[in-house]
Amino acid sequence: MKILAIDTSNHPMSVALVEDEQLLATTTLNMVRNHSIYLMPAISKLFELVQWQPADIDRVVVAQGPGSYTGVRIAVTTAKVLADTENIDLVGVSSLAVLARNVEPASTAIIVPFFDARRGNVFAGAYRWQNGELINEIADQHLGIDVLLNQLAKLDQSVLLVGHMTDKIRAKFDQLPANVTLLPRVYGIPSTYQLALAGKQGAPVKEIDSFVPHYLRITEAEANWQKLHPGETRKNYVREV
Amino acid sequence: MKILAIDTSNHPMSVALVEDEQLLATTTLNMVRNHSIYLMPAISKLFELVQWQPADIDRVVVAQGPGSYTGVRIAVTTAKVLADTENIDLVGVSSLAVLARNVEPASTAIIVPFFDARRGNVFAGAYRWQNGELINEIADQHLGIDVLLNQLAKLDQSVLLVGHMTDKIRAKFDQLPANVTLLPRVYGIPSTYQLALAGKQGAPVKEIDSFVPHYLRITEAEANWQKLHPGETRKNYVREV
Repeated sequence: MKILAIDTSNHPMSVALVEDEQLLATTTLNMVRNHSIYLMPAISKLFELVQWQPADIDRVVVAQGPGSYTGVRIAVTTAKVLADTENIDLVGVSSLAVLARNVEPASTAIIVPFFDARRGNVFAGAYRWQNGELINEIADQHLGIDVLLNQLAKLDQSVLLVGHMTDKIRAKFDQLPANVTLLPRVYGIPSTYQLALAGKQGAPVKEIDSFVPHYLRITEAEANWQKLHPGETRKNYVREV
Repeated sequence: MKILAIDTSNHPMSVALVEDEQLLATTTLNMVRNHSIYLMPAISKLFELVQWQPADIDRVVVAQGPGSYTGVRIAVTTAKVLADTENIDLVGVSSLAVLARNVEPASTAIIVPFFDARRGNVFAGAYRWQNGELINEIADQHLGIDVLLNQLAKLDQSVLLVGHMTDKIRAKFDQLPANVTLLPRVYGIPSTYQLALAGKQGAPVKEIDSFVPHYLRITEAEANWQKLHPGETRKNYVREV
């Protein structure tokens, strides 16, 4: 199975071409730049190196969020267009689940991948390896880093935090709970090779048109709208923290 | 510190640009192709994306082997030429130590990275994390996979094998010892981001001219020469297995 995996959901932008279990080629850019400028040229360059045509792909796997609004949309839209025009399978995988896979499956720890969601908040979830399968223990959510750490401190288990602890997030808490270890930053870059393999196992989406990102929060504009219209509720909104 | 990290020592060819602790860009190709054709264009492309000039680099870090003869030489020669012409620091890091770093530093296991060395042999070493530092427990060596597994079976500790278990190596043993776990293949691709960070800590070589790869075995031609000249010994040869 020939897989194209793409992730622009957070700071790194990454593309991988994977055939069955084998990585063929991957590129990751991790600069403060607009992913929309670099994504298609990066895909195109890898196709050229591996000598694939878009029609050769069996499956597009995309990191579905959470992450930045614009970021998530770039890869999801690109993946949807490719899957639709080439009539191939599309699979979405949690951006956090991909990051959790940087911890190898012999680990018995609770793995908590996180991304900076700005304003002292993070996107985070809790995962655990069980017989080689990555199990989601606590659903991906949008919350304050202080709230997250208070929750993790109550767990009676070792926790590995995986992500890039930016100065702004770090400023929001005094110290890590005794049972929590922050892995070095090098483990905080998600791998699109891992994304491809995770998506290889997943069920393809049935209706490409209705496939949407997992934002896990509302936009500032939506929050302002809600403040101005306190009585009205709209579906699909999640709690603002 | 601006670092260029390159690794062509084994099947994957990889380049990374890292500034201080941050990955800026990386590309890995893992096809059966000649690394010599793809290395310089890959370096050039990443420099273009990150908008660096060769003179901007503070340090070149290279995977020094073990690995294939030709493979190791390509990156080492490229690194030496760059370091010499641009008058910048050169640091060599064991290709196996880089692979070991794919296991995160909270792990207490003995980490045994390996590469296929053909004919049922592997390059392998044993490493362990201690207070965030990767310690080499058993020096990198060239040996039969069966010999390696017999040695690992005697250890009174959990061992994580990290690498790509090709069919040809797999055919050389019946089963893994009870204390040994083979990590999935996705953890068997060395990261040049990890290479850069490992080399950031290392001392630069003093004489670039005398910097040579760690082959850890003699070539077939040299082995044949020794058979024909049994009485004569030459320095720097290591044991053929």
